[in-house]
Amino acid sequence: MLHAVVTGNVWATKRVEGLPHGAFLEVQIEGTDSRLIAFDVLGSGVGERVLIATGSVAAAWFPGKPPPIDALIIGAIDDPASAG
Amino acid sequence: MLHAVVTGNVWATKRVEGLPHGAFLEVQIEGTDSRLIAFDVLGSGVGERVLIATGSVAAAWFPGKPPPIDALIIGAIDDPASAG
Amino acid sequence: MLHAVVTGNVWATKRVEGLPHGAFLEVQIEGTDSRLIAFDVLGSGVGERVLIATGSVAAAWFPGKPPPIDALIIGAIDDPASAG
Amino acid sequence: MLHAVVTGNVWATKRVEGLPHGAFLEVQIEGTDSRLIAFDVLGSGVGERVLIATGSVAAAWFPGKPPPIDALIIGAIDDPASAG
Amino acid sequence: MLHAVVTGNVWATKRVEGLPHGAFLEVQIEGTDSRLIAFDVLGSGVGERVLIATGSVAAAWFPGKPPPIDALIIGAIDDPASAG
Repeated sequence: MLHAVVTGNVWATKRVEGLPHGAFLEVQIEGTDSRLIAFDVLGSGVGERVLIATGSVAAAWFPGKPPPIDALIIGAIDDPASAG
Repeated sequence: MLHAVVTGNVWATKRVEGLPHGAFLEVQIEGTDSRLIAFDVLGSGVGERVLIATGSVAAAWFPGKPPPIDALIIGAIDDPASAG
Repeated sequence: MLHAVVTGNVWATKRVEGLPHGAFLEVQIEGTDSRLIAFDVLGSGVGERVLIATGSVAAAWFPGKPPPIDALIIGAIDDPASAG
Repeated sequence: MLHAVVTGNVWATKRVEGLPHGAFLEVQIEGTDSRLIAFDVLGSGVGERVLIATGSVAAAWFPGKPPPIDALIIGAIDDPASAG
Repeated sequence: MLHAVVTGNVWATKRVEGLPHGAFLEVQIEGTDSRLIAFDVLGSGVGERVLIATGSVAAAWFPGKPPPIDALIIGAIDDPASAG
């Protein structure tokens, strides 16, 4: 999985059929300049630190026929301060 | 998913069997010099900003036996100006 | 597979459904500055050298419906000294 | 998909079972120094510009049990001059 | 596929269940400094030039439930001298 920070949203009104309900969020991979777009079903917000699963396992998480989604936010990383 | 801009078309008359109807578009990944060829079923044009799903989820989107397609344009990114 | 060293833990209380029991460990890929988060079912500790399988094969290792896990620690690398 | 140029052949007499009929060709990814070995069923030659699909979709193209092939030449890119 | 050279062995006594019989070999990708660990069933030795298939196709080569193996040596590259 990748450790990333949410940096924004993207909207795509013109789209293929079969995309699930949820948001496309732009994330930056920690420690790098790399950005990608991950699908979010957790209501993640800009600035939140998240865990991202990539590849076909992201699509397989959804019920039914797998959608063309190759990156899914699977969790929000706990704040060390609040955890302590 | 990757955020990219369509930069051109490629044609391949000599090809394996089983490729679906649609276009092979050259795209440049935003913020990088990386280019790849994505399959398009949305009628995307040069200069359009798009979302690309890569890997086996791209092939699984098609009905029937999955074609040897590893990158699919799944949406056009809305223009922030027109969205505002 | 990747050869890596465990460098820390991450916790994610807010998470999608369907994640298995185990730990999310931060690892650094040997010979690089790259870090990723791998799932651990072996009780690996910080500083331990491990083998990591990535992609859908990591998810397919789990019984039942594959979880959205794209990196799994599949073994601890034997210490050459103790092996000799 | 990747846009590449065929740069050579490789032969592997000692091999695992289950590899299909065809050639292993060395290709260079356009605009990079990266090289990989792609499987070819189209009779592609050195210097030819080709489209390559990578990952499990390459294996899934073959009939029957998927072979351990992770890159397949799916087409030859048309010469712009002859196309024009 | 990747063209690589075998550079060593790794042993992992503590391991997850379901790994097949064979060796974990460290390989260096030709023309790069990148190293990875590939599974070997051909008895490959240090210094041998090999072809490696990566991703889920490596696991799918094995009979039965796919093991968490993401890189498989599928052949030894013939020596050009002996071939000539």
